Amino acid sequence: MTKRTQPKFTSEITVRKVQDMGGDHMVVAAARVSTSGEEAYSYADGTALTKDGLPWTPKDSVGLISYLVKQRHGTPFEHSAITFFVHAPIFVWREWHRHRIGFSYNEESGRYKQLDPTFYIPPMDRPMFKVDDWKPGRPKFLTINQLGDEIGWETAQNRYEQLCANLMLSYKTAYEMYEANLAMDFDPGLARDCLPVGIYSSCWVTCNPRSLMAFLSLRTHEPEAKAVSYPLYEIEVAARAVEQIFAEGWPITYKAFCENGRVAP
Amino acid sequence: MTKRTQPKFTSEITVRKVQDMGGDHMVVAAARVSTSGEEAYSYADGTALTKDGLPWTPKDSVGLISYLVKQRHGTPFEHSAITFFVHAPIFVWREWHRHRIGFSYNEESGRYKQLDPTFYIPPMDRPMFKVDDWKPGRPKFLTINQLGDEIGWETAQNRYEQLCANLMLSYKTAYEMYEANLAMDFDPGLARDCLPVGIYSSCWVTCNPRSLMAFLSLRTHEPEAKAVSYPLYEIEVAARAVEQIFAEGWPITYKAFCENGRVAP
Amino acid sequence: MTKRTQPKFTSEITVRKVQDMGGDHMVVAAARVSTSGEEAYSYADGTALTKDGLPWTPKDSVGLISYLVKQRHGTPFEHSAITFFVHAPIFVWREWHRHRIGFSYNEESGRYKQLDPTFYIPPMDRPMFKVDDWKPGRPKFLTINQLGDEIGWETAQNRYEQLCANLMLSYKTAYEMYEANLAMDFDPGLARDCLPVGIYSSCWVTCNPRSLMAFLSLRTHEPEAKAVSYPLYEIEVAARAVEQIFAEGWPITYKAFCENGRVAP
Amino acid sequence: MTKRTQPKFTSEITVRKVQDMGGDHMVVAAARVSTSGEEAYSYADGTALTKDGLPWTPKDSVGLISYLVKQRHGTPFEHSAITFFVHAPIFVWREWHRHRIGFSYNEESGRYKQLDPTFYIPPMDRPMFKVDDWKPGRPKFLTINQLGDEIGWETAQNRYEQLCANLMLSYKTAYEMYEANLAMDFDPGLARDCLPVGIYSSCWVTCNPRSLMAFLSLRTHEPEAKAVSYPLYEIEVAARAVEQIFAEGWPITYKAFCENGRVAP
Repeated sequence: MTKRTQPKFTSEITVRKVQDMGGDHMVVAAARVSTSGEEAYSYADGTALTKDGLPWTPKDSVGLISYLVKQRHGTPFEHSAITFFVHAPIFVWREWHRHRIGFSYNEESGRYKQLDPTFYIPPMDRPMFKVDDWKPGRPKFLTINQLGDEIGWETAQNRYEQLCANLMLSYKTAYEMYEANLAMDFDPGLARDCLPVGIYSSCWVTCNPRSLMAFLSLRTHEPEAKAVSYPLYEIEVAARAVEQIFAEGWPITYKAFCENGRVAP
Repeated sequence: MTKRTQPKFTSEITVRKVQDMGGDHMVVAAARVSTSGEEAYSYADGTALTKDGLPWTPKDSVGLISYLVKQRHGTPFEHSAITFFVHAPIFVWREWHRHRIGFSYNEESGRYKQLDPTFYIPPMDRPMFKVDDWKPGRPKFLTINQLGDEIGWETAQNRYEQLCANLMLSYKTAYEMYEANLAMDFDPGLARDCLPVGIYSSCWVTCNPRSLMAFLSLRTHEPEAKAVSYPLYEIEVAARAVEQIFAEGWPITYKAFCENGRVAP
Repeated sequence: MTKRTQPKFTSEITVRKVQDMGGDHMVVAAARVSTSGEEAYSYADGTALTKDGLPWTPKDSVGLISYLVKQRHGTPFEHSAITFFVHAPIFVWREWHRHRIGFSYNEESGRYKQLDPTFYIPPMDRPMFKVDDWKPGRPKFLTINQLGDEIGWETAQNRYEQLCANLMLSYKTAYEMYEANLAMDFDPGLARDCLPVGIYSSCWVTCNPRSLMAFLSLRTHEPEAKAVSYPLYEIEVAARAVEQIFAEGWPITYKAFCENGRVAP
Repeated sequence: MTKRTQPKFTSEITVRKVQDMGGDHMVVAAARVSTSGEEAYSYADGTALTKDGLPWTPKDSVGLISYLVKQRHGTPFEHSAITFFVHAPIFVWREWHRHRIGFSYNEESGRYKQLDPTFYIPPMDRPMFKVDDWKPGRPKFLTINQLGDEIGWETAQNRYEQLCANLMLSYKTAYEMYEANLAMDFDPGLARDCLPVGIYSSCWVTCNPRSLMAFLSLRTHEPEAKAVSYPLYEIEVAARAVEQIFAEGWPITYKAFCENGRVAP
């Protein structure tokens, strides 16, 4: 608990894939047991054949996977798993941890270690200025450039710089007080009460394609989704990183998810 | 989003019971269906009789409930429910929300409203100074009086006052910056990044006796429990309030829980 | 374990409401905490006022509840609960028990009691004859009358009677063998292996409006639903009874569910 | 739906491991993030070192894993996963499917295919005769040999043969009626109502070490367990197969589970 470092301000949110299990073939294997019983095992061990007697690959079952997503048959998407290691501000974890089902977490603890002085600052291109007719339920924001078109770029830029200055001042003060509290030998779980939700924390996240798609549907904004979500910018950054990793590992499932309005089955 | 008030510093964590359903009789009704089938309904509608032909009450089934807890037959404890309205600092929510199963939450949102400037300050009798042989896994702390016996009461008291001053300074700075950010029309979900985990938030919590006992077993410290937990002081304050409400509504279940080492069935 | 009775053949599936908690007002209370913090408590304790200063009732929040369903904000629907006592054949339980989240069960056990000889026979008006172009994924069936239009009513009627005779013969044989096995002092959990999935069993079911709507969306057939389901007839009978009880207790939520394509939020 | 085969009677219950992810190292990686933050990643990617600077292996963390199990810190055991393909009678699935949390299932469906005529017959060495002081809560049974010591081996053997004859007669009748119903073009989900719970079905099962240990603790009988369970013989057969596969993949976790009274963390 003695490590001290200079505050670090960053906009980066990192999502690393640690391990995974399954794939599109397991979706088919799981679904086919309904209609094929024991024969469904062949989709898992790679011995399945197409009707033409050729080696089966998940591409031969694009229609089935799409049907499962569309009809919201969700359970076949639970026989895969993936673990991420994520570095993100606490305000992102506050939202992410609300996903309870099909999600497992283990996070860095302010009770057990001194938290690193790494703090979140928004990137310049983050939409962040409230529009005139702003409503909480459908939050819409302008970037600096967009606001600049209205009130002048320099004024807009100044506001952004002021925001960053405000955050950094507050972050620094909080961390200084935190370290002062620790130095007086207070319970680390009390000393940290002044730390901001903008401080970073590391967390393991394990989920399955079904719970992952539910996460994506709520934490990404797609205008053409069947139920359009308006997530916080920063959790969407994490969700988009998750989405890309998912798309690589379960390409057919991912395509079906996108083509069916991004509704989780 | 225009309301402004003076910062308020408090140690109070409030748990209000909003509604409940069921009771000890439903534990018996649920368990008895295994052995009695349709007749088990009589335990729910109040028509059950004892072997002696007298009106049955849950007190007649103390042994059964104790047996269920001891043998970890957990499902009969899921046919009741209770809702709380809780006012607690965000660092308490960070822990509470990790209870995923049998727990439902809806919490105040910094994206949708200006958070009130209510901040947590520890009470003087909180154990909070690390003991010399302190270990993270089994955290143990001294109160001001206990530390005072070692280093003098006034020195101990000064440290506490310094902690409070540190926290309050940091809290105030954070809230000032937060309001400044809001005044510049920034996304409230960004403006708040400097707010501390010591700020208060309101949250609905609905659970059932089974999930509630799991919460109690991990978030209260009882030296004689079968698996002794070392919870954060503040979540234990909330858990003890929950415990009292639970004890009043499910007295026989609660007694069985305590007598069987506080292991959730 | 000595009770013996004559076999009973029935088509009845019963769903009794045992207890409930909450209502439409709790949906609003839960949702409003996001934007109102502590003031949301007033929706739960009945002190809330409308903008006009009149006593608030859930009818004043029809739009909000509809919005929550449409946008799939599901958590506000978890702060209510309801318990049913259901008498249904085992093949219904086989499907119902697959609903894992937000559902609690306690069922009669063949290991702990002699199961009653009550068996399921389909009612005459059940759609039950496969159509010519029948496909498993979209099962469609004709009633006796519909089939009778094609092949003659008497022939159709005869088939139905033959089905019932087949089922009853098999049921009787199974129960006789079951009783013979019990009479030889075999483990009841082994003696029952010949009992059919058409035998009845009693079960407690506790859920919340969110999990209940997920159940309804999958276990009822509505041609105009956004994702049309093709449930087994008998679980739909149970689901429709559940639906009616739900509609009475949460009328505004129920209406929103129906008007938004019966997609569970 | 036209395949017909001769009835097959068997005692075999098969559990095949299909895939897995993680291992003991992920338990340590997950737990260490509390105290080490980002450095915990090294336990997952194989770069961790011991205090002596040697390559770390899970054996170096036996004490930590044991501590986690003992103190019931359960979440670190959720960052692994395993999928089984299981062939077992429906009465086994009736119990297994009651494990809701951390378990995913996809099972063969009598609505979508003709079920194979494979039926369960107990092996000769199954404890199956009720003892004189038999009680449902603590079921205890004698094998043929044990009963034979009391009433003569031949008499005991005859009883077993009679049981098997009863089951087989009932199974055959049920399957004949089932096929007759199918031949009349009835809904397969209705035609099957006479099929016994002793018929076999295939099912995918995906779980994680935490949910798997909860399953083992309830579905295996170990006299020295902290909470002794009295599972049905046949689900214990499946559970023991699961246990062996688990022991091979997570040897240190498994050892900790056994040494701490087989209480799932």
